[in-house]
Amino acid sequence: MPKTYELTGLGNAIVDVIAKVEESFLADYEITKGSMTLIDETRAKGLYDALGVAHEVSGGSAANTMAGFASFGGKGAFMGKVANDQLGGIFTHDMRAEGVHFATPPLANGPETARCMIVVTPDAQRSMSTYLGASVEFSESDVDEALIADSQIIYLEGYLFDKDAAKKAYYRATKAAKAAGTKVALSLSDSFCVDRHRADFLKLIENDVDILFANEAEILSLFQTKSFEEAATQIKGKCEVAVLTRSEKGSVIVSASENISVAIQPVADVMDTTGAGDQYAAGFLFGYARNMPLARCGALGSLAAAEVISHIGPRPETSLAKLAHEKLGLPQAA
Amino acid sequence: MPKTYELTGLGNAIVDVIAKVEESFLADYEITKGSMTLIDETRAKGLYDALGVAHEVSGGSAANTMAGFASFGGKGAFMGKVANDQLGGIFTHDMRAEGVHFATPPLANGPETARCMIVVTPDAQRSMSTYLGASVEFSESDVDEALIADSQIIYLEGYLFDKDAAKKAYYRATKAAKAAGTKVALSLSDSFCVDRHRADFLKLIENDVDILFANEAEILSLFQTKSFEEAATQIKGKCEVAVLTRSEKGSVIVSASENISVAIQPVADVMDTTGAGDQYAAGFLFGYARNMPLARCGALGSLAAAEVISHIGPRPETSLAKLAHEKLGLPQAA
Repeated sequence: MPKTYELTGLGNAIVDVIAKVEESFLADYEITKGSMTLIDETRAKGLYDALGVAHEVSGGSAANTMAGFASFGGKGAFMGKVANDQLGGIFTHDMRAEGVHFATPPLANGPETARCMIVVTPDAQRSMSTYLGASVEFSESDVDEALIADSQIIYLEGYLFDKDAAKKAYYRATKAAKAAGTKVALSLSDSFCVDRHRADFLKLIENDVDILFANEAEILSLFQTKSFEEAATQIKGKCEVAVLTRSEKGSVIVSASENISVAIQPVADVMDTTGAGDQYAAGFLFGYARNMPLARCGALGSLAAAEVISHIGPRPETSLAKLAHEKLGLPQAA
Repeated sequence: MPKTYELTGLGNAIVDVIAKVEESFLADYEITKGSMTLIDETRAKGLYDALGVAHEVSGGSAANTMAGFASFGGKGAFMGKVANDQLGGIFTHDMRAEGVHFATPPLANGPETARCMIVVTPDAQRSMSTYLGASVEFSESDVDEALIADSQIIYLEGYLFDKDAAKKAYYRATKAAKAAGTKVALSLSDSFCVDRHRADFLKLIENDVDILFANEAEILSLFQTKSFEEAATQIKGKCEVAVLTRSEKGSVIVSASENISVAIQPVADVMDTTGAGDQYAAGFLFGYARNMPLARCGALGSLAAAEVISHIGPRPETSLAKLAHEKLGLPQAA
């Protein structure tokens, strides 16, 4: 029997608070450019007070990927935890409006919906400070095993490893996937996140992961090396395919039999790099779920990344199905 | 003694929910293009469910004007009512982050913070459906008479007339202004709003308003005429100055002694007309508060309107002080 969903994402359910800042803001508030830092409620409040006018949009790494996957015309679902509050309502609305199945019950009592303060400097780089709130209350009982069994691929974000309950849920999801012949994709999310959980990640990759996504900093951190070539050699064969993204240098797809280099798709005016990795994964997995050649999967990834960095915000604002048709000649969706 | 504030706005405290839609969405959901319709909570929920992915940003007509006024470098304050909830927190944050004094206590028990669903069609026109929620719980006791007395001008939005408690607050504010030598500016807000409150508006304009803002549809509605010239003649002398905006046809400033035509500032790519009138008022009032000639006040209005229609969202995203310096040669702020 064919499965209902092509891809199910599992990740933190987060609303982004996006503000433009001057370069000096990073130093003043001790924010490391390009990284994601976890913050507590007090720091979240203080930082928000310091921010200028902000836009609120739904975010979260795997959730962004699912939004992009649906924009390509893919059939997707998402599991993640919001609180029963206004921001949770916004996150839920957006996920469903994008056509992604999302049915994890909201948290009734506990912390508020997670939010990520994203400051965008004039060089279009984003630096993130995340208050995880309700999102890491995602627990084993929230893992919908039937949904996982009914998906071709599940996609996990490394960020979930940051709290124990979520980590357990994660292992349960992986186990359910293995039992049902569902492939497992993992994004390493952030080099500091890799640093916090290196041994766990290595074990997971060798045993359970079929498709790995990592950017250069993350794969270097995973193998504690300074050489990208060394890291690419190390990862080879540890999973079916590893997709290594290198910002403006494009990406490298490492399979057992070959390494494929994929060029970026040029963008006239880079506005905000938030979501570039998430959307690359969306494009790649859309191609992969439909059995396209790996080079084509990579091209779809580059296409989606180019769209998202050309505007403020982590999710596509133009139909990726339409772009894929116009720029890569994919058949138009029904 | 000089007054602390140049301008204090009084209006609905609203968070905007902005989504792009196809033209057909308006017919499907019976929305009148370009207008503002009041909706109840049930309709708000139904409409939100039907909307695609949205951005949340702070809005509200007079609040948008205050944001623009502050962006010019003006010293401003705002009075309006949010609920004690997440959207209220967002509204409050943005107002203060823009440098506007905002200290109206949030509503403790009652409806949620107001929201306005703004759908933007491919022609960049916006159509608004507003759930007023907590904003119209603004009552007489929220009127800060000391603040009004300490302001050169107060700016009222016509939308407030839509609920009785807010209307009473409005009269109290006007009375306090008159007693303290504070000028009163009024925006008619919307032609349907004018239709709902024509007699009250006419009386207010003749007795209390010094500076009136109206777009073409609003001034035609006020005098129940189809002739703009007729309406311009009718308004002459009823208040110190009437500013009549006509979209791409520019604006006409009507004072007792003269009518001044002001051209628009051309925009390469009109993205979203939301906030055009609000920002025009911000520019005009900034010039007016600083005793600039009326033609210059109008040019500042056109400048601010041009900025806001060149992007999605109702508030400036570029410093208006900087634009006014670069394009109109205003002295740079300290």
